Amino acid sequence: MNLMTADRASLEAMRQDLLAKFEACKAKGLKLDMSRGKPSKAQLDLCEGMLTVLSKNEDMFEGKTDTRNYGGLEGILSCRQMFADMLEVPVEWVMAGGNASLTMMYDTMMRLWVFGAPNGTPWCKEEKVKWLCPAPGYDRHFTICQQLGMEMITVPMLDDGPDMDMVEKLAAEDASVKGIWCVPKYSNPEGKTYSDETVRRIATMKTAAADFRVFWDNAYIVHHLSDDQDSLLNIFEVAKEAGTEDRILEFCSTSKISYAGAGVGAMAASPANIEWTKKIMTVQAIGPDKTNQLRHVLYFKDAKGIEEHMKKHADLLKPKFDMVLSMLESNLGGTGAGTWHTPKGGYFISFDAMPGCAKRIHALCKEAGVVMTGAGATFPYGKDPQDSNLRIAPSLPPVEELEAAAEVFCTCALLAAVEKRLEA
Amino acid sequence: MNLMTADRASLEAMRQDLLAKFEACKAKGLKLDMSRGKPSKAQLDLCEGMLTVLSKNEDMFEGKTDTRNYGGLEGILSCRQMFADMLEVPVEWVMAGGNASLTMMYDTMMRLWVFGAPNGTPWCKEEKVKWLCPAPGYDRHFTICQQLGMEMITVPMLDDGPDMDMVEKLAAEDASVKGIWCVPKYSNPEGKTYSDETVRRIATMKTAAADFRVFWDNAYIVHHLSDDQDSLLNIFEVAKEAGTEDRILEFCSTSKISYAGAGVGAMAASPANIEWTKKIMTVQAIGPDKTNQLRHVLYFKDAKGIEEHMKKHADLLKPKFDMVLSMLESNLGGTGAGTWHTPKGGYFISFDAMPGCAKRIHALCKEAGVVMTGAGATFPYGKDPQDSNLRIAPSLPPVEELEAAAEVFCTCALLAAVEKRLEA
Repeated sequence: MNLMTADRASLEAMRQDLLAKFEACKAKGLKLDMSRGKPSKAQLDLCEGMLTVLSKNEDMFEGKTDTRNYGGLEGILSCRQMFADMLEVPVEWVMAGGNASLTMMYDTMMRLWVFGAPNGTPWCKEEKVKWLCPAPGYDRHFTICQQLGMEMITVPMLDDGPDMDMVEKLAAEDASVKGIWCVPKYSNPEGKTYSDETVRRIATMKTAAADFRVFWDNAYIVHHLSDDQDSLLNIFEVAKEAGTEDRILEFCSTSKISYAGAGVGAMAASPANIEWTKKIMTVQAIGPDKTNQLRHVLYFKDAKGIEEHMKKHADLLKPKFDMVLSMLESNLGGTGAGTWHTPKGGYFISFDAMPGCAKRIHALCKEAGVVMTGAGATFPYGKDPQDSNLRIAPSLPPVEELEAAAEVFCTCALLAAVEKRLEA
Repeated sequence: MNLMTADRASLEAMRQDLLAKFEACKAKGLKLDMSRGKPSKAQLDLCEGMLTVLSKNEDMFEGKTDTRNYGGLEGILSCRQMFADMLEVPVEWVMAGGNASLTMMYDTMMRLWVFGAPNGTPWCKEEKVKWLCPAPGYDRHFTICQQLGMEMITVPMLDDGPDMDMVEKLAAEDASVKGIWCVPKYSNPEGKTYSDETVRRIATMKTAAADFRVFWDNAYIVHHLSDDQDSLLNIFEVAKEAGTEDRILEFCSTSKISYAGAGVGAMAASPANIEWTKKIMTVQAIGPDKTNQLRHVLYFKDAKGIEEHMKKHADLLKPKFDMVLSMLESNLGGTGAGTWHTPKGGYFISFDAMPGCAKRIHALCKEAGVVMTGAGATFPYGKDPQDSNLRIAPSLPPVEELEAAAEVFCTCALLAAVEKRLEA
């Protein structure tokens, strides 16, 4: 039934049905978590072999480097090479770090904030710093800007990436606009991949700020769901031609390849930015956990090995995505209660509910024992102007639980939509 | 021969002897490194068993916590408990972090700098921030202050810790004095341990700044060289009585217990400071490498296990310290070329050369293939007013190499002193 055209009596009857269904859901006493993009136990179990690649003292060396000892700010060479091949950049452009690219992004932002870009003013000394935030986007990105008191400007996500007309205009006209967050491949939460044209425009656009920075969070670079894959233009290739390579800071990690909490993060950047990073970072750190880096290199061998390994993740994730998508289709298709699309990779399904319904759906789900990412979290300041977007993270629960959770979600989405229509 | 009383002819003859000896040293083509407090391969080898405590998927849990997944900003409970027992504080006061307490100190300083202490102004907004630096001290501490543009005030180290009359006066009278660096046990580089009285005075002194912070870097807390050990008063006990516990931030790590580059760092602080840390840190990180923390807990079991393990380090380190000290005594004793003392723990022997000789000794050693920590490094801004202090780090080289290095050092120290006397 299409809720937009249904008459009041039908909506009222539907509401009664849905309330009964909702109570039945509640009675099951579920306790399910779809709030974060966490790998499942089965995914984490895939890497068991990594635990034993280092088992003897003589294993701990990378060439002459004893990975157990101090030093090596940029990470061990073989690990940097593995990331370099994955990101398609020269190894000199790569630093391998600790267990989180989020921390590398935060620390990089902090360096810009406190010390400024090479030849730039510290951003904390600027009267105002504005930041472009394609939305829906990743809540943890936005929180970094918010903590520093930047003014976040929401840029709508179109099908091929951020609204580049808006991005170009703001970047070109306002010198206080210092940068942009991008998750260019299988974006969080929508699973969209930037088009070549979008990548080109980001790399080559005019910026009023000489120290404009693109935080290119390539978190899902090899995180396909099947052989039907998106491909992303290498932004550094374009930037090098345009002479804008200092604008780009690229990040990735093995958090969703090996272990979410015990993986290795990496940053790729131009030689000038790497030198700048090391110069400031050498006061903060002596070196990353090189032993864990070596563990990764010995287990995966190279970027090709990572690619192969990711197929095992896809085999575990694809059925979960398919199940949620099919539940959405069968329960909500044609109702007008919401729209969604089918990602080819990444960790999320983005759901756009009937406007004004997201918070209500979130609350209803919670009441029925299903925890979702907070409504609004995908927008700057946690405020979704339409109160519409919800992020579904299907990775963590086993597939049976996920089915129960998806049923709850569909029931709540429909119920909220019916209520909204009845209010009208 | 006492150089201070020797006549010119004797000095001249001695110089010729020493120059010949120096050339003989050079001819050996040594390449030895005594610059940093790095554990030796033999020390790192002690922990081989830690590599295999996690070898199966089912090993990866701490209770219900899957250490491989995201989360747990404060570290896993059992690891925090191990540090809590070591530091003699409640487990709620402890956060276990990544591979470096240096990074935890830097990040804490950065939080104070950018966001301010609880209820405080961000230090970056203050007109001036001054910091008390007991010296000789740890160069990496000083570099943090220098990077942020703080004004470092050198406080002389006495036998029982920093000159507390000076510390108390500066802290009480000047509100821009925001804190002090302390390595209270087996201090870097002198190996001195603060007396109970010094600890009490630091914990209870009046401070003009309400947000004064003591960075209590307890880096060598269990790093004894034998059973003849120093003991340090628990500063939190005193501070709690005085109601000043928010002033203290304590740091330590397993860098010189397990692996220098792949250990676990920890911070102990009052509940108010822990809450403040987590509130800011949650934007920077999702959680530390809990898997490596679990590895440590399973291997060492508890604080007692660490204590036992440290005896093996002592067995390796003590002969090296003894050898260097005996070389110093036999070559330099009674000459007036320098003074030193005999630490009961830590990683260094601090050598006070005849004033005006440290840089020269450093250069001579380098010429003969022995790399020492830079002269002056143990003082703020790298400037030793007396050009006298040198830090000897005996841990890294095998004992035979160390003997060669110590011979070079003694030769250079004597030569520099003789030269200095001949200038007079």
